[in-house]
Amino acid sequence: MAIVVQKYGGTSVGDVDRMKRVADRISRTHRDGNQVVVVVSAMGKTTDDLVTMAARISERPPERELDILLTSGERISMSLLAMALHGRGVPAKSFTGSQAGIITDAVHGKARIVDITPGRVQQALDGGNVVIVAGFQGVSQDTKDITTLGRGGSDTTAVALAASLGADVCEIYTDVDGVFTADPRIVLGAHKLDRISYEEMLEMAAQGAGVLQVRSVEFGRNHDVRIHVRSSFSYAAGTWVGPKEDMVEDAIISGVAHDTSEAKLTIQQVPDRPGVAARLFSSLAEENINIDMIVQNVSADGRTDISFTLPRGDTLQARGVLEPLADEVGAAGVKVDEDIAKVSLVGAGMKTHPGVAAKMFGALSAAGVNIEMISTSTIRVSVVVARNDVETAVQAVHAVFGLGDDGLPAEEA
Amino acid sequence: MAIVVQKYGGTSVGDVDRMKRVADRISRTHRDGNQVVVVVSAMGKTTDDLVTMAARISERPPERELDILLTSGERISMSLLAMALHGRGVPAKSFTGSQAGIITDAVHGKARIVDITPGRVQQALDGGNVVIVAGFQGVSQDTKDITTLGRGGSDTTAVALAASLGADVCEIYTDVDGVFTADPRIVLGAHKLDRISYEEMLEMAAQGAGVLQVRSVEFGRNHDVRIHVRSSFSYAAGTWVGPKEDMVEDAIISGVAHDTSEAKLTIQQVPDRPGVAARLFSSLAEENINIDMIVQNVSADGRTDISFTLPRGDTLQARGVLEPLADEVGAAGVKVDEDIAKVSLVGAGMKTHPGVAAKMFGALSAAGVNIEMISTSTIRVSVVVARNDVETAVQAVHAVFGLGDDGLPAEEA
Repeated sequence: MAIVVQKYGGTSVGDVDRMKRVADRISRTHRDGNQVVVVVSAMGKTTDDLVTMAARISERPPERELDILLTSGERISMSLLAMALHGRGVPAKSFTGSQAGIITDAVHGKARIVDITPGRVQQALDGGNVVIVAGFQGVSQDTKDITTLGRGGSDTTAVALAASLGADVCEIYTDVDGVFTADPRIVLGAHKLDRISYEEMLEMAAQGAGVLQVRSVEFGRNHDVRIHVRSSFSYAAGTWVGPKEDMVEDAIISGVAHDTSEAKLTIQQVPDRPGVAARLFSSLAEENINIDMIVQNVSADGRTDISFTLPRGDTLQARGVLEPLADEVGAAGVKVDEDIAKVSLVGAGMKTHPGVAAKMFGALSAAGVNIEMISTSTIRVSVVVARNDVETAVQAVHAVFGLGDDGLPAEEA
Repeated sequence: MAIVVQKYGGTSVGDVDRMKRVADRISRTHRDGNQVVVVVSAMGKTTDDLVTMAARISERPPERELDILLTSGERISMSLLAMALHGRGVPAKSFTGSQAGIITDAVHGKARIVDITPGRVQQALDGGNVVIVAGFQGVSQDTKDITTLGRGGSDTTAVALAASLGADVCEIYTDVDGVFTADPRIVLGAHKLDRISYEEMLEMAAQGAGVLQVRSVEFGRNHDVRIHVRSSFSYAAGTWVGPKEDMVEDAIISGVAHDTSEAKLTIQQVPDRPGVAARLFSSLAEENINIDMIVQNVSADGRTDISFTLPRGDTLQARGVLEPLADEVGAAGVKVDEDIAKVSLVGAGMKTHPGVAAKMFGALSAAGVNIEMISTSTIRVSVVVARNDVETAVQAVHAVFGLGDDGLPAEEA
């Protein structure tokens, strides 16, 4: 008997009718003879509504309490989904993250899973039940407090459970058909990928392809979980994420991702001494601020600007950490630019094809897009551009690498 | 340092502004040098809204899942209240019933507390925190599933926690000023009692004075917890519930309670054989149906009607249990009357004052109210009347015993 883990996001269970449709789909998988574990998010905008309520109560709500508040959303959706399954004659039991054995560290708001002890889940499965597990939440190993895994954390709950249960597949249901070569809302000719490797998906996710949380892909890669990203509105196959050896074709370029959720922070005229950068970034790490692209150029006069991108919501906190430090190390100041976007080209084949980055920069230049920052890995080239340029940039890059039928002239990569 | 347990109902925390007022009151108690434990219900109509949502999903939602759903309401209110306290500079930590060590049996929807292990609550108190605990919920000893204690269960959570922590007082905040000689909405001259004994309060609560859950009073009596029922909208003293020896005056009659939430069920023409009644009522007990007044008269022809009252919501289930049994024992059938009300006169003094019951029946008769059933205890006389007669009956009984300034002629009891 196969074990199937299915994850449904907030849109898929956005109202009672959609929840009933999800119940139909789960019933079908169960009737087909599978053991089914379902990870569910809060309904629709529930989490946003709870955040708003917290903001009305307190300007800076304590994170421990915010996590307790936010996790109530999944408690509602998971019990309702279990009821809907009962109504269809399918035995079902729901479990909170804590009950399902999702053990995390104690970093409220963005906890990391450190262990999974799915004894109760396994027992309920063995008893013939569909098991519903609250996504996005866990319990801290040390404090026994309720924690949340951050936005998109339900993906990680699902993949981590799939790994610990030895599931045959982890299906991530979403409101799009799979992973695309670019955001179809921006690039008309973008097409769905049938398969993508963990590494490429990791880069796509990290660079803003919002379909999977980065940590869920890391978890999948580290524990070899086959992930199937698909639409909850159709029964068509979506995109399979797996190891490289599963890939039938070795495409040079997988796609173009973009991310408009970040800001750029620059520490100006930092004295170019050993240890300064380390000191700045370790202070940020201590505050659990996730930074992304870092760019530094040594200038002639022994001073340099250090720039990095970070989630826009963290800029205030980062400023608070960096401003006194900038003073201390003798830098000129801290500047924030919130009107930026990141555009990334991802592809496992690009490392053996020189000239990919140059071709991307050329296309951007031809489209009149100015590049503010550049960062590359072996399978990715990312640039930061002005927020207003993001659509033009994505379209130009997608077209120049011939990723789809753009209606624009496509060259051979 | 005194330990004060405070319980706030759904109306007291009905919206963000009310919750802030509650936070002010808690801050004040904390600043006065007390250790404060707060038990909180779900906000306003949250629980009703969740029940409605469940009804839209499934006609007969499984009780385990219904309990998970309903307990999310307190999770929201408790974390918001903790945030509001933080905003006032008062350290606060919230705990679910399970985290607070409220251990129950496994009867979903009306679980009983079997143990309290308040280790985390005590530890947080010792750390200088106000502790917020979710009312109405616990965790089953055997199955580790989330349970609820039934309507009004937050009162019991509060009194049970007060008992286990050795609190100096358990304050039950409500939207009325205390316990009244009758419902002030029905009897204009009803007045607030300053003190009432556990036993009388137990009878008042059991007979429909909705201000305290019956089990909370039992718990208070068994563990000698001083309960102070008071209004969350004023700082005036309310009604103290305590042992008889605390009572300064020994009033004959405490008050008149009424209850319109029950139905009357009659098993008609039951053969009058030993064991028949036991069989009927043990079947109901197995289904956890709480029955209340039982009346049986032996008739001449060896057959008798057995009537009892029960919560209106349980009539369908009770019928399901009793109809096949009625057939089996040779009874004529089962009849349900939902248009009834119960009116009770309560007073510790009445057992030494003969004629109290007779005087009550006389007053009802003079007011044109027909009595359908009678049941008495040493400190209570209850009658069942037609639903339409309830106001007339309460007013007539309140007046005849001179319980207030009714504007009606009052006799000496």
